[in-house]
Parts: sequence; structure tokens; C-alpha cells
Amino acid sequence: MSKISFKNDYSEGAHPQVLQLLLASNSTQEPGYGEDSLSLKAKEMIAKKLNRPNIPIYLVTGGTQANLLIISHVLKSYESVIAVDSSHIQVHETGAIEHAGHKINLIPQQDGKLTVTEIQKIIKSHKDQHMVKPRLVYISQTTELGSLYSKKELIELYQYCQSNNLLLFIDGARMAISLTAKINDLTLEDIANYCDVFYFGATKNGGLIGEAIVFSNTVLADGFEYALKQKGALLAKGRILGAQFYALFQDSLYEDLSKHANETAERLANVLVSKGYTFYIPPYSNQLFPILPKDRLSKLAEKFEFYIWQDYDEHHSVIRLVCSWATESSAIDEFIQLI
Amino acid sequence: MSKISFKNDYSEGAHPQVLQLLLASNSTQEPGYGEDSLSLKAKEMIAKKLNRPNIPIYLVTGGTQANLLIISHVLKSYESVIAVDSSHIQVHETGAIEHAGHKINLIPQQDGKLTVTEIQKIIKSHKDQHMVKPRLVYISQTTELGSLYSKKELIELYQYCQSNNLLLFIDGARMAISLTAKINDLTLEDIANYCDVFYFGATKNGGLIGEAIVFSNTVLADGFEYALKQKGALLAKGRILGAQFYALFQDSLYEDLSKHANETAERLANVLVSKGYTFYIPPYSNQLFPILPKDRLSKLAEKFEFYIWQDYDEHHSVIRLVCSWATESSAIDEFIQLI
Amino acid sequence: MSKISFKNDYSEGAHPQVLQLLLASNSTQEPGYGEDSLSLKAKEMIAKKLNRPNIPIYLVTGGTQANLLIISHVLKSYESVIAVDSSHIQVHETGAIEHAGHKINLIPQQDGKLTVTEIQKIIKSHKDQHMVKPRLVYISQTTELGSLYSKKELIELYQYCQSNNLLLFIDGARMAISLTAKINDLTLEDIANYCDVFYFGATKNGGLIGEAIVFSNTVLADGFEYALKQKGALLAKGRILGAQFYALFQDSLYEDLSKHANETAERLANVLVSKGYTFYIPPYSNQLFPILPKDRLSKLAEKFEFYIWQDYDEHHSVIRLVCSWATESSAIDEFIQLI
Amino acid sequence: MSKISFKNDYSEGAHPQVLQLLLASNSTQEPGYGEDSLSLKAKEMIAKKLNRPNIPIYLVTGGTQANLLIISHVLKSYESVIAVDSSHIQVHETGAIEHAGHKINLIPQQDGKLTVTEIQKIIKSHKDQHMVKPRLVYISQTTELGSLYSKKELIELYQYCQSNNLLLFIDGARMAISLTAKINDLTLEDIANYCDVFYFGATKNGGLIGEAIVFSNTVLADGFEYALKQKGALLAKGRILGAQFYALFQDSLYEDLSKHANETAERLANVLVSKGYTFYIPPYSNQLFPILPKDRLSKLAEKFEFYIWQDYDEHHSVIRLVCSWATESSAIDEFIQLI
Repeated sequence: MSKISFKNDYSEGAHPQVLQLLLASNSTQEPGYGEDSLSLKAKEMIAKKLNRPNIPIYLVTGGTQANLLIISHVLKSYESVIAVDSSHIQVHETGAIEHAGHKINLIPQQDGKLTVTEIQKIIKSHKDQHMVKPRLVYISQTTELGSLYSKKELIELYQYCQSNNLLLFIDGARMAISLTAKINDLTLEDIANYCDVFYFGATKNGGLIGEAIVFSNTVLADGFEYALKQKGALLAKGRILGAQFYALFQDSLYEDLSKHANETAERLANVLVSKGYTFYIPPYSNQLFPILPKDRLSKLAEKFEFYIWQDYDEHHSVIRLVCSWATESSAIDEFIQLI
Repeated sequence: MSKISFKNDYSEGAHPQVLQLLLASNSTQEPGYGEDSLSLKAKEMIAKKLNRPNIPIYLVTGGTQANLLIISHVLKSYESVIAVDSSHIQVHETGAIEHAGHKINLIPQQDGKLTVTEIQKIIKSHKDQHMVKPRLVYISQTTELGSLYSKKELIELYQYCQSNNLLLFIDGARMAISLTAKINDLTLEDIANYCDVFYFGATKNGGLIGEAIVFSNTVLADGFEYALKQKGALLAKGRILGAQFYALFQDSLYEDLSKHANETAERLANVLVSKGYTFYIPPYSNQLFPILPKDRLSKLAEKFEFYIWQDYDEHHSVIRLVCSWATESSAIDEFIQLI
Repeated sequence: MSKISFKNDYSEGAHPQVLQLLLASNSTQEPGYGEDSLSLKAKEMIAKKLNRPNIPIYLVTGGTQANLLIISHVLKSYESVIAVDSSHIQVHETGAIEHAGHKINLIPQQDGKLTVTEIQKIIKSHKDQHMVKPRLVYISQTTELGSLYSKKELIELYQYCQSNNLLLFIDGARMAISLTAKINDLTLEDIANYCDVFYFGATKNGGLIGEAIVFSNTVLADGFEYALKQKGALLAKGRILGAQFYALFQDSLYEDLSKHANETAERLANVLVSKGYTFYIPPYSNQLFPILPKDRLSKLAEKFEFYIWQDYDEHHSVIRLVCSWATESSAIDEFIQLI
Repeated sequence: MSKISFKNDYSEGAHPQVLQLLLASNSTQEPGYGEDSLSLKAKEMIAKKLNRPNIPIYLVTGGTQANLLIISHVLKSYESVIAVDSSHIQVHETGAIEHAGHKINLIPQQDGKLTVTEIQKIIKSHKDQHMVKPRLVYISQTTELGSLYSKKELIELYQYCQSNNLLLFIDGARMAISLTAKINDLTLEDIANYCDVFYFGATKNGGLIGEAIVFSNTVLADGFEYALKQKGALLAKGRILGAQFYALFQDSLYEDLSKHANETAERLANVLVSKGYTFYIPPYSNQLFPILPKDRLSKLAEKFEFYIWQDYDEHHSVIRLVCSWATESSAIDEFIQLI
């Protein structure tokens, strides 16, 4: 019997509606390279959701691809990115941003969230041509640690950026999760209004593949179609990307799926709390970081897969448990019994 | 009524078996980033076909991505690529190879095929550190013009490369088409034996997406998994790529589909010949380049889509007609009636 | 006895005035990185000569460095350069432009000069995001073959660029030679007026080192000081560059030296003509391309160094003879006796 | 009256012997691009000093250029650099290393020196293709803070690198200073023996320009001449670089000059100690980091230039005072009177 995985939010395939849509449109001849009717309709649906009719939208295959495409497109060679030290671009993208030519100015933050005060320090210490020129602030919603920016925090960051010639870019690989998290007070329309560019993912929320890049600051999109092609990100059969977002946005599927992930995680978190466990990072969304006694881990590992995030102390570890749109109630039941 | 397209070989979705496989495996939890069971099995099938049990294979999304990944991985910064002037990397990849840092040394050739004599001229004219160092020979099978290398020609190129410290790389976006072309005398195993690295595509032969990169010269593959991730080519749900090749290689589907494309094109070519038309490039495979009177084009264009390749003379144009795995007999019938 | 070299225009050291200036200023403490008084004064002198008081000027060490700095600074990643196939950036810079990420769209031209008609062809054939976007026209004055653009030709190129969203960049490694060539009708001020960016060299005209980059289109210079530092082009002791241009521009030395080179070459050309020799490229400036019988070359090579440019026919070769600011009259005398 | 500068070690021009040598060789015709007799002899002298007859040596213009050339030449795209957070490549090179494509894995260290323990942590936390692959350890001798590695420390680092497939690279912009520092126990020959590649500078020790790159691990030098040209680092008149090292190495000038700098700094340090001042970093070489009362700074600044390194506490600042080969005794006398 194979183990149940709480390792990540991309273990399963796609929600059946995505595959049905691919099947239904399969034999129609369509233009290539993103000009297919599925992609066009998906973009139209997204634009409508954002209340921004002609906003430039591009569909790509994954998060690292989106990050490197956006950052290398909007920055000059000597401009740098400001990000927290736990950010995905810093830790888990094999130096893709540096390979694209840009330094990341790091800010250490335990909860994964950036503050204006910290950005200011970077700006003040970069004064002349012997140092890079900080130009883009990169944040994630939710962060790598499951935490969220509130509307107030986002507006504060955006206003600071606007006043200081900085671009604000939001990595939304887990955007859906943030939108349906209990403490969230932001809509997708808000997100578009309070940044220069962002993307949100299908991959971790019911899709097989796909991130949708949106340039709120529309002039930044000039020539982006060239960048897509040049970096190998333009699919011949763009319909494969279009179908994901079409299926997720034609009704409320996009929110329904992440709501399920959040609620499942919340149920799990509540049980952990009730059994007296504490958390390294408070449980904000679908990622939980409970602190467990080391001697319990091997027993759990017999039936479940999860990441051991880091040592907490001699006798305890922080583990990461991720619930997804596909996590079944029975999986939680089984886990609870063992804990 | 929408037009029938002979514009390219990626107008349709996937062969139904590919989608069925995705559906069947959809709810299984799988490891991410290419470690899923579909990808592993697909690679095993390919390796078996090549009679090279542990040959390094990597699945990526498209041809431009494959080209830039391979070329930038195996070359040092000052090493260059030798290619014909009609090659895909030269004409239709938005300078992806140069963006990755490498010059392409161009060889003009009407039929799209490279010869040892032409390569030698490049080698002889590049002598010192003031010029790039030619190091990789890039060819396509079939070429952009539908022509094919014979076994004798391929071996001759490979031996020259071997003797002159050059790497031979075969772009096989249309490899399946070449393998089932009437004049072909090469097997996929031969291809693997007579080059350093090649890839062959699912996208243009029944898949939704996907090219399989094979390092015959295995040492060249060292660290390639890092390059994949760094350039945004590693999909979280690798199963989407695995499924394509699994479906195509579990039986003879891969050859069956391209055979259909070639035979359909041959039928169309024969009719064109019988009606007295000539060709800019002889009809070798699924791409036809007939020379048609300009005054017939607008009438054809009412019912069909195709590329006007180039002017031939004052009264004639070369057009390109592409048949695919999905081209229906009735489409040919209709076209024949109009011509 | 060592041979006399006609191989190039950088065989000697510097004109004595340059070294005197370095000596005279040697013990003064100066700010680093181009803020020294010699560099500042040199730039002031150049700006005055151009009649453009605050025009941005940057001093760098050499031509390849200048070319890659300028081109990579003003282009987006997918924008390309239009140049003749004999241009320095294409042939003799080890792919520096491609290494910086940009394709060069090549135009074949025997005399090394670009025309509007040829540029138009490139523009018309580049239509969408599957191809690079031509954006910068690169020319040299004089060209690699010693030919020159007339004022009329330059204005025509510039106006075409202006109307077609193209930047015009002039590589002036041999600018001084062009300005004092017999058929020249352009001033340095004209050069600045009819292009977006150019540079002119000290290295081949009496300096030890140094090219002065001038951004006529001043907005293009934004952030260029960062690019200089990032690419390793900013010298700690900038005075070494400043001294070259200060010495050359404080009086008429810059023109005097190139006039000597041109006149010496003219004398040599006249003798060659009088002896019945013809030229591959007409003798415009300090580079001569006479066609000589192959059986005379070895005798010449006993006393002189020169490049054998290419075969002309079975019995003749084109050679290149270069005169410089330092070529002595006696060298010409000796050469004439042997020819 | 202009102020006396203790800001850096590149305020003056060159030692007179360097200029004399340039003058003496000025009218001789020499081959270009580093093949001139001065460069060849300088390399011979250096190789002899290292007791490594055919060791590959390349002369370039500056430190940032040397750093980016070496690092980009020896690393694959996904390989990274390990360095302290105060290192020159991290702080003061405008992201040149990232622009060349490589992440720097940072280690915080107050004294600017790297230890095996810290490197190990980086190695252990980088396990798979989702992260960069640490491959090169970058250290400086002396460090940015004037501290030095002892022979024991260097051997320990080198042996660890050797055992862990890491390259050791020593930035020796201030190598001469280290070799004549009081606590030093390393020779230039030792340096060559205990690393893979290093460079040492003329610029900060009596030269106008120039760093000499030495590949102890000779195979790493393959093709480096191409990299030099491609990145704009190959000077047409290489003699300008050759002359610096020829002049410094034909007798003991190289050591004599740095000894002067160290002794001058020591004299200054002793006075500061005797007056009761303490240091942020102990005074190891020609850079001093005394802690001074803030209310004394403006008075000092009337006659001297120096960097205010950082705040120490409310009433004190750390300043940096640099002595060079050209610092005159009278400058120290004047400073002492004011302190």
C-alpha cells in the first residue's frame, strides 16, 4: 500500500473538469502559440474577474518560468530584486534569477513577509554605480511559510514602491489559497490594483500545469511575447494552458478548490492544537508547520509522506504538512489517529 | 464554417490515447518534477527502443526550449553552433540561442541539409581567439523543408564531427515523420548511435506537448537536471509530459501517426504532380512546397489555411502544405477538387 | 633586424605627448573611477568639439568592450543588431554581441557599407515574436575595409532609422582616419548629430588605450555608469584613459596624427597605381587592399609584415597594408623599392 | 590646498619606473593582444617567482574584470560561489557575478575570513537540482577588512576544497600588501600552490592598471584567451599591461612598495594605540579601522579624506584609513598632530 502524501500541493493530476475540457476541444483545429480559443476565453474570464478589460495576460507552464520571465523582462541588467531569504526565487529555483543576470538583495524574516522598514534599509545602503540598483520588490501570496499579507500591508508596500521608483511583483503560485484563507481580506481585483505585475497558479489548485501572468502596470508588458518565445516558454499547443484556466474560471471552481484545501488544513490544525501541539509558524492557510517530538516521526512516516522542515530543539522537529484541493477527509482521519 | 488548416502540424489537440492515459492516472498521488511513474516508464520504453538501457533522457515542453537547453548546456561561452540558414534556431526562435550566449555560424543551403564540405569551410576560417570556436553541429531530421538525411549522410557527418572535436546535435521535432518517410533508411536506434545528443517530439505527432531529449554521449548529460530547473523547464507535475510519451511508445502509435501524415501528404503530392504542378523542394515527407499560380491562391484561401512560403516568379508562389497525424482524408478530397 | 609592420594600426606605443601628460600628473592624488581631473577635462574638450556642452561621454579601454557595452545597454533581450557581414562585431569579437544576448542580422556587402535598401529587407522579413526584433543599426566609420560614409549617406541612414524606430550606432575605432580622409565631408560634430550613439578611438590614433563613447541620444545613457562597472570596464585609475584624450584633444594632435596616416597611405597607393597594381577595394583611407602576384609575396614578407586578406585568383592575392600615425617615410621608401 | 587622501590605495598614478619602461619601449613595433615582448617577459618573471615555468598567466585591467572573467569561465551555469558577505564581489561589483549568471552563497563573517565550518554548512544545505550547486570558494588576500589568511588556514581551506570537489579562488587585488604584512607567513609561491586560480594586482601597488591572473590548476585555463576577447578584456596594445608587471617584478619593487605601505600604516596604528584608540578590526596591514569619537571627524575631514566605515555607537564611528606605496611620511606626521 502506498503512503498518503502531505508533502506538497501538486501530487495529484488535474481536477476532472480540466481534463473534460481538453477532451471536448481535442479535435478542433486551433491556431498555435496561445492564439487558440481556449486561451483567449480564459484570459477574457480572468480580465473580467479583475475588472480590467484589456489587461495584458500571458499563460506559462510554471512558477520558476514565470519568475525568471517577469524579472528579466522588467529589469535592466544592473537592477536587483529585493526579497526575503526564504523566498522561492532565493532558495528553490537553482539560481534562475541570478542566471538571468540579477542579484537578489536578501532580507531575513522568520514569517516570510517583507516590510517597508526592511526595504528602506536596502535602498539606503545602495547609493552608487559600484552596487546594484534595487528596483523590484518580490513578495509571495501566500508566502513559502503559508503566511499572508493583509490589504493594509499590501497597500503600504505598494505605496512605498510607487514613491520610491520600485516595482512590486507578487508571486501567486498559491494565490488561490490566499484568497480563501480565513484571515484574508484581499480579492484578486485588489491584488491587481496594488502591484505592478503578478501571477497566479493553476498547478497547485486543480490544474495540471499553468500560471497566469498579469501586468497591472500595462506598459511593462511591451514585447513580453518576444521574451516568452525567446526563453522557450511559448507552447505550440497553447490550448493546454488555456484549458486549465478556462475550466477553473468558468464558474467558481478556482475558489472552491482552494477553500477545500484551507478547510481541510484548518481541521487538521485544530486537532493538532487540541492535542497540545504548537506551531513554528501559526497555521494561516493550507501549509502547517507543527512542532512534533522526534520520536513520533518514524511512526508517522510509515503511513504518510511529509517534509521535515528543520530541527526545533534536541527532541523536536518542525514538519510541514500540506493539504490540497484533492486531500480527502479520510486522509486527515487516518493522520489524526496516529498523532 | 471554419477553414481546414494545412498550415502546420500542431493544429489539433492530442491523440485520444494520450488523454485517456492522463485521465486514468489522474487521481494517483505521484512525486513531482519528473519523478512520477508515467515519466519513468516512458523513459524506460524509449531507452528500450534505443537499445541503450541507461541512456539519459529528459522530457521538456517544446522545441525552442529543448534547443536552448541543450546548446547552452554543452557549450562553453565562446563556442558556436554551425547550422543552415533555414534552420529553426536561426529563423524562428527569437534569437534564443544568441540570447543564451552563442553565435550561429550560418551555412546557406537550399534543401536545408548540411554537408561536411560546408562545415569544413567554417572550421578552416575560425583559427584564433578573435573569433568564436565552432563546436556543435546542429541539424534537423526532417529539416525545415521536409528533406531527410540518409544513413550514409548522417554517418559521414557524425564521423567528421568525431574526428574534429565537434558535437553533433539532431533536432527531431519532426523525427517521427522522418522515420516513416518513404525514402528513410534510419531507425531511432541509428539516430542515437550517430550523434551526441538529439531530441524527438510528441507535439507534432499526436501529443499535446513534449520533446524527449536523449544524450547518446552520456557524459554531456552531467548536471542537466540543474539546467532544466534553472531555465524554468522542470514541470511540477511531470506526469503531463510522461503521459504523452508513454501513450505514444507503449505500442506502435508513434510510428502509426507519422505514417498517416506521410501517406496523406504523398497522396496529395501525387495528385499535384498528376495535375502538372512542380515543387520548390521535392516532396519527401509531410511538408509539401508546390509552386502554384498566384491567381489560384485566393480561391484556395477561401476554404483552406496554408503558408505562402515565398515568391517563385512574377506569376507563381511557393506555398507550404502540411499534413499531420490528424489530417482527414476528406480534407485532401476537398483540396484536390479545388486545385 | 626585425621586420617593418604594415599589419595594423596599433603596433607602436603612444605618441610622446600622451606619456608626458601621464608623467606630469603622476604624483597628484586623484579620485578614482573616472572622476579624476584628466578624464573630466578630456570629456569637456570632446563635448566642446561636438558643440554639445553636457553630452554624456564615457571612456573605456577598447573597441570590443565599447561595442558590447553599448549594444547590451540599449537593447532589450529580444532586440537585434543589423550589420554588414564584414563588420568587426560579426567577425572579430569572439561572438561578444551574441554572448551579450543579441543576434546580428547580417547583410552581405563587398565594400563594408550598409544601405537603406538592405536594412529595409531585414525589417520587412521580421514581423512577429517568433523572430528577433531588429532595433539597432551598427556601422563603422571607416569600415573594416577602409571605406567611408559620406554626409549624404549618413543622413539618409539616420533619417531612415529615425522613421523606423531604429537606433543608429557608429563604431569609430578608426573615426580619426575617416575625418581626415581625402574624400571625407563629415565633421565629428556631424557624426554626433546624425546618430544615437557612437564612439571614437585613441588606440589606433596615437593613444596607448581608450575609446570615447558618446550618447548623442542622451536618454540612452541612463544608468550606463552601472553597466560599465558591472562589466568590468570601470578602471580604478581612470586617469590613464583621461590622459589619452586630453593629450589628443588639447590641440590638433588627434587630426594631425590621422592626417599623417592617410597621407602616408596615399603616397603608397599612388606608387602602387603608378606601377600598374589594382585594388580589391579602392584606397579611401589608411588601409590599402592591393592585388599582388602571389610570387612576389614571399620576397615582401622577408622585410615586411602584412595580412594576406584573401585569394583573388590562382595567381593573385589581396593583401592589406595599414599605415598609422607612426609610419615612417623610410618604411614607405623601402617598401616601394621592393614592389 | 587640496586634502591628503587616506581613502584608498589607488589615488596616485604609477611608480616612476613603470612610466619609464613605457617610455623606453614606446617606439618599438610590437604584436598586439598580449603577444608583445613586455607582456611575455613579465609573465616569464612571474612564472619564475612562482617556480612554475609554464603556468598559464593572463594580464587584465582590473579586479572586477578579473573576478567575472575567472568565475564565469570555470563555472557551469548552475554552479555557485561561496563568499563572505563583506567580499568585494558581493558588495562593490554592481552584481557582476550574478550578471555573469552565478549566485553567491553568502557567509556572514566580521573579520572577512572564510572558515571550513561555514563552507560545510553551505555544502550540506545544497542537495539537489532545485538549488544551485556550490562549486567555487572565493577568498581575498588581504580581505576587504585588511585581515590575512595564515599558511595553516589557507592549506586547511584548500584541502577541504580538494576533498569536496570545490575550486579555491584567491582575489589578490591586495596580494602584495599581504605578502609583506608583519604577521604573514605565505609566499607568492605558496599562494600558487594552495589554490586553483588567483590573481594579484599592480593597480594598488605602484601600477597604473593591471591584475595578473594565474591558473595553478592549469586545465582551468583552457580557452581563457577566448573568454578574454569575448568579454572585452583583451587590449590591442597589451604592452600597457606588460609594462606594469615587468617594472614591478624585474627587481624587488613589488615587495618594496607594499612594505612601505604596511610600515607606514603600522606607524600610524602605533600612534593611534598609544593615544588610547581602539580598532574595529585589528590593524593587520595597510588598512586601519580605528574607532574615533564622532566629534573629531569633522576637524580631521578638513585636512584629510577617509571613509566613515560605519557607526560604532552613539558617540563613535569606525573610519577607514588606507596607506599606500605612495603615502608620504609627512602625511602621517600631519595626521598624528591632529588626532
